[in-house]
Amino acid sequence: MTWLDLPADHPFGIDNLPYGVFSTEGGSRRVGTRIGDHVLDLGPCAEQAGMESYAVWLEPSLNAFLAQGRPAWTAAREWVTEALSNPSRRDCVEPHLLAVDAVTMHLPIEVADYVDFYASEHHATNVGTIFRPDSEPLTPNWKHLPIGYHGRSGTVVVSGTDIVRPSGQRKPPTESTPVFGPSVRLDIEAELGFVVGGATELGSPVSVGDADDHLFGVVLLNDWSARDIQAWEYVPLGPFLGKSFATTISPWVVTTDALRSARVPLPGQTDPTPLPYLQGEATDDGAGTAYGLDISYEVEWNGTVVSRPPYSSMYWSPAQMVAHMTVNGATLRNGDLFGSGTISGAEKDQRGSFLELSWSGQEPVALDDGSERTFLEDGDTVILRATAPGPGGTTISLGDCTGTIRPAR
Amino acid sequence: MTWLDLPADHPFGIDNLPYGVFSTEGGSRRVGTRIGDHVLDLGPCAEQAGMESYAVWLEPSLNAFLAQGRPAWTAAREWVTEALSNPSRRDCVEPHLLAVDAVTMHLPIEVADYVDFYASEHHATNVGTIFRPDSEPLTPNWKHLPIGYHGRSGTVVVSGTDIVRPSGQRKPPTESTPVFGPSVRLDIEAELGFVVGGATELGSPVSVGDADDHLFGVVLLNDWSARDIQAWEYVPLGPFLGKSFATTISPWVVTTDALRSARVPLPGQTDPTPLPYLQGEATDDGAGTAYGLDISYEVEWNGTVVSRPPYSSMYWSPAQMVAHMTVNGATLRNGDLFGSGTISGAEKDQRGSFLELSWSGQEPVALDDGSERTFLEDGDTVILRATAPGPGGTTISLGDCTGTIRPAR
Repeated sequence: MTWLDLPADHPFGIDNLPYGVFSTEGGSRRVGTRIGDHVLDLGPCAEQAGMESYAVWLEPSLNAFLAQGRPAWTAAREWVTEALSNPSRRDCVEPHLLAVDAVTMHLPIEVADYVDFYASEHHATNVGTIFRPDSEPLTPNWKHLPIGYHGRSGTVVVSGTDIVRPSGQRKPPTESTPVFGPSVRLDIEAELGFVVGGATELGSPVSVGDADDHLFGVVLLNDWSARDIQAWEYVPLGPFLGKSFATTISPWVVTTDALRSARVPLPGQTDPTPLPYLQGEATDDGAGTAYGLDISYEVEWNGTVVSRPPYSSMYWSPAQMVAHMTVNGATLRNGDLFGSGTISGAEKDQRGSFLELSWSGQEPVALDDGSERTFLEDGDTVILRATAPGPGGTTISLGDCTGTIRPAR
Repeated sequence: MTWLDLPADHPFGIDNLPYGVFSTEGGSRRVGTRIGDHVLDLGPCAEQAGMESYAVWLEPSLNAFLAQGRPAWTAAREWVTEALSNPSRRDCVEPHLLAVDAVTMHLPIEVADYVDFYASEHHATNVGTIFRPDSEPLTPNWKHLPIGYHGRSGTVVVSGTDIVRPSGQRKPPTESTPVFGPSVRLDIEAELGFVVGGATELGSPVSVGDADDHLFGVVLLNDWSARDIQAWEYVPLGPFLGKSFATTISPWVVTTDALRSARVPLPGQTDPTPLPYLQGEATDDGAGTAYGLDISYEVEWNGTVVSRPPYSSMYWSPAQMVAHMTVNGATLRNGDLFGSGTISGAEKDQRGSFLELSWSGQEPVALDDGSERTFLEDGDTVILRATAPGPGGTTISLGDCTGTIRPAR
């Protein structure tokens, strides 16, 4: 219970407390937590309260806080929870609360390495069927390892940033050589992004069981994708310019701790069973160390909810992705970000990309305004939203992740 | 002519002047330039001489200097050249010269995004023949665009760093399911790395003609590759763990200015001619804005030079790689690094990887010590060295890039 005047079912209640980076007019960027419709300016508040490590919250990104590691994250969450729960703290804390509408949100992390996985079986099956109609939809490796690749860290932007339609090479099926111009198959990918801290040394793999020490929290992630550019470029070394123009993330990093009640077992990995380094162990909550997450998404296209992808349908677990990513000795750095890959459920209205929803443009999607869409048109706005179960039947919001398409330059 | 007592043909003479980051015992990391067998401690020297922007040379990486952009780089080079040429500067400069053997070299840049290209036609043809024997060696897109993908920035290490053999999944041809263990096909890729500065804004492509404003200089780059891990994982999203365990670069960044005399025309791009955004323009030196570079490599394996790849044989130019990488609006950041891809010439003894030199392990390479090699064994040491023509018949050294293989943990 918080001493703030807040409905018990507020999706940014005391059980959520995500971290973000904000500024007020003329002020510097700094770290805050969201409670209800307010942002708590953590640095000055913690300094005034005599908290030792307040300085990490005066930084313009979460990276210094991420570097402190799991014990510090737990202690910080306890401190913030107490500050907002104990009425005796009210006089000290209240002056540092700002209306969320009065602040500007920024990219919460300085992105170190950005990796994008491909962890939804339904998505991989759909895309495989569309892109490689003459082959098995899933490549032979797909159920043996969480496939991933590195993306461009420098073009990760915060929710609300306009997305300029990218130009590039594409080869229409009717042409013998490629043409150049603005992408005509601009798409989204609704994903969950994982924010990493507690940097490791070179040559120190992180096990599935230890992954939580490095999984600070999550953001919503839209991996904008120019399908025509991607289709022409991606063999043999993977997606490049079809993805690297922009990746949008939500401003509030919801912590792994806040998502404890959302942990669920994976749908199943029995045929085949993964190699030992990817296997989790049983835990008291029944979800295992290789847990999934019961996060419900909405994909809104120009005001119409066109899809509701369920994160609980994902094949590979975040902890498995961490274990795989580091098994060769690669380091984790503070500020590393990895995406789950597009979240698509088994049903048509659970698909997390327009490529799948429109089945490569063959089945237009009807919007409430009477128009139809296959891929993104200039002026279109896409909003991702998501929620997860909190403790005691509450609901936690992961906020939203939005972008509007601007014409190619 | 420098006032230092230096042979006129010293490969780190007055025409070279590469930048690196060094430290002395107990001292902080800072920027220096190499002249002969000395390192000039640039920050204090420039401060004492009253140079305005000396502070960027007191930083622990080149990134602040990279941020200053082309005009500052040119001015700095003129300043350093004058300081080391004008005898009246000697008293002021000489106290800041340190023996190169007495300093420790560090990673010269804080790597922002790392991209690896695939710009050698001979290499791509060899690898395509080995990895995809039933297809055309070059994919249909290869001559239309410089294929590239993002690598892991966080595991770029400086020359001399030991390389621990990575473990991971591989699927031997005789098995139906993958096995886990140390890579048994550990390889090198001899590449040239390009260090980028003069950061751009989102949505601002850099043309071929403007690329030099962002190409600060080059390093030697060894893109260590676990071929068995790579072969199993790379379809459909590209190389990941087969590469991400380590990438080694040489400590001295040789500037684009120092390589002016090394510019040569590309071998030819007439069938097909690339799209206009990839085309260079003629220049007075005959090399064009889409120039190649006449850099000669040596690959030394346990003391035996096993290959001499010629960079002049590369199909795609560095300026074309910059233009391609940004044509979709992606930014360049200070500290971006991109690799050329393996440099392989037309001849067998010009191949830049052991995969090619041993033709996938079928043709062992004989070393001077009487042993034979296919892929890397524990304890093996590989050294890349390279030189380029300087002005007036001189030779410029790009230094060396070395690593020794340690057993898997």
